[in-house]
Amino acid sequence: MAKVLVETSARHVHLTKEHIDILFGAGHELTVKKALSQPGQFACEERVTIVGEKNEIKNVSILGPARNATQVEISLTDARNIGVKAPIRESGDISGSGGCKIIGPCGEVTISEGVIAAKRHIHLTPENASEFGVSDKQIVSVKIESEGRSLIFGDVVIRVSDKFAPAMHIDTDESNAACCAPGLMGEIIK
Amino acid sequence: MAKVLVETSARHVHLTKEHIDILFGAGHELTVKKALSQPGQFACEERVTIVGEKNEIKNVSILGPARNATQVEISLTDARNIGVKAPIRESGDISGSGGCKIIGPCGEVTISEGVIAAKRHIHLTPENASEFGVSDKQIVSVKIESEGRSLIFGDVVIRVSDKFAPAMHIDTDESNAACCAPGLMGEIIK
Repeated sequence: MAKVLVETSARHVHLTKEHIDILFGAGHELTVKKALSQPGQFACEERVTIVGEKNEIKNVSILGPARNATQVEISLTDARNIGVKAPIRESGDISGSGGCKIIGPCGEVTISEGVIAAKRHIHLTPENASEFGVSDKQIVSVKIESEGRSLIFGDVVIRVSDKFAPAMHIDTDESNAACCAPGLMGEIIK
Repeated sequence: MAKVLVETSARHVHLTKEHIDILFGAGHELTVKKALSQPGQFACEERVTIVGEKNEIKNVSILGPARNATQVEISLTDARNIGVKAPIRESGDISGSGGCKIIGPCGEVTISEGVIAAKRHIHLTPENASEFGVSDKQIVSVKIESEGRSLIFGDVVIRVSDKFAPAMHIDTDESNAACCAPGLMGEIIK
């Protein structure tokens, strides 16, 4: 049986070097707070405020290292709350997605696109993928057994890279809908 | 195929007559704003603030008519945000559930239990239940087909009464996890 660790991604931001300079000061380097499950990825000490048309969210995490495009990943609950558009997209696929303002201690940035609700996905190494009999970009389902909110997520994208560690990522709405607890394993259904 | 309308329940409060008196003044009658799908149930013009240990939510809807016990139905996103316990429970099953403070324009009430995250459920008439071949308290699954977030909800409770209209109720976390749009129909799977 193909089982994978299910991790909940709270709202977060990826920033370009240019935007880090504006928000935190020229030449600022992000401070590693905690390593994440994906090799080389880390949560930062720095925080920003995300501003939509109706409201804002303070204290939003930044995930490092710097990227080629700034991307804001929020839940649909967040999107409705602050008044921004957040289409369901894979990370990096931000063309025509939502815009928002990002405020840091040294300045602010307005992005016209980059706000998304992450499409649920599974990170696998080529070895995991081979073992499970799945391939990059394949759409699978994942069965979650929980206390009172068991469900089967459809539309889960497989992503394969030798830079990955095996983990399924869902957002906080999805985690709450399935009552996911830390350490929970999901069963991949092809 | 057994299909049922899927409705999203936003956070709301049911109040006792005694609590309505405290929050809105002695003898106050709730003002009907909009009839709901379940016969006799209505959303009110009146609003309250829900206060947890960490934060509060203003402008929370009240659903009438008055009930025998005050009950606060919030999402797990809300529960975490304001710092209250909200176990997954069927409506009315509030023993040992979460507590909170409720503030109205004329006073406030602190409840030691009554805060829940509603267990997903389907209201059916005896005729619907017979047609679908399901019975009161039966646990079923419901398949949702949506753009990018299709899923199958497990742990869905069937509730049968001749006072009901056929509808599945899920909370905002669940609705967002499935990208539910208004008018969406779910397929009951036994």
